[in-house]
Amino acid sequence: MEYRNPTPTTDVIVHRQNQQGQTEVLLIKRLNPPHGWALPGGFVDEGEMVERAAIREVLEETGLRIDLDHLLYVYSNPKRDTRQHNLSIVYTAQISWEDSLLARGGDDADEAQFFALDALPTLVFDHAEIITDFVEFLKTGTRPTPQMKLHDEIS
Amino acid sequence: MEYRNPTPTTDVIVHRQNQQGQTEVLLIKRLNPPHGWALPGGFVDEGEMVERAAIREVLEETGLRIDLDHLLYVYSNPKRDTRQHNLSIVYTAQISWEDSLLARGGDDADEAQFFALDALPTLVFDHAEIITDFVEFLKTGTRPTPQMKLHDEIS
Repeated sequence: MEYRNPTPTTDVIVHRQNQQGQTEVLLIKRLNPPHGWALPGGFVDEGEMVERAAIREVLEETGLRIDLDHLLYVYSNPKRDTRQHNLSIVYTAQISWEDSLLARGGDDADEAQFFALDALPTLVFDHAEIITDFVEFLKTGTRPTPQMKLHDEIS
Repeated sequence: MEYRNPTPTTDVIVHRQNQQGQTEVLLIKRLNPPHGWALPGGFVDEGEMVERAAIREVLEETGLRIDLDHLLYVYSNPKRDTRQHNLSIVYTAQISWEDSLLARGGDDADEAQFFALDALPTLVFDHAEIITDFVEFLKTGTRPTPQMKLHDEIS
């Protein structure tokens, strides 16, 4: 009897403050389907800690060397990715304005660009939901709860 | 080219207050190797949200119907499980004294029993570390940080 499991991925909300004090979030333009803007991230390799995979993926896709600050939440609704059941372990990482200027698209990313929260493009997967949760976390320190996500699954 | 990934599992810290106001944590005695005491939990199935897997595993192994309160952290050090690279997504769930009395071993669990934090048995995997992190979370509201876990991986 063979069991099948979701595949673990990780995404990172790399954020900076612009000179007007507004928060901006790093997005990449995906080279592979589904095309569109997304948080930087990717699959966790066997033998690799998720935190290392997160740092590696951001470096590969955006050229930025980051320190992770917090685990935000784990997103695992089976419908979040139409390709297969991928769950995402999401971290936050604040970066200084100066360091953020080195961002450039690489690997699976055609472009890497910061966007103000009130000027986000359309996002693939459930990344709009993730950024909504991040904004709440930034404002109040409150993370999503399992009850919230179970409720969203049903509704 | 085939990629291999860690396999996602979930564990739950089901806790109650005893009549002296002390916190007690639910552990199960594993029927399968590695034998010993552990947090209830298990593998996440394809198509299943991690939160549902957590609730299902606690019900199967302990007979308790729980509501999940918080995501504590994701533990993914490759050395945490000698069988294969299993990462664990860990939730907390407080339960009332009355409801907790229904605990009984089932499925992969020979026994299910609450232990006071100062009288824990030896635990398998990294479950002692997880409970240490839980105690800190309970006391201060602070979760483990990615930096802490990356530091622990190296040292």
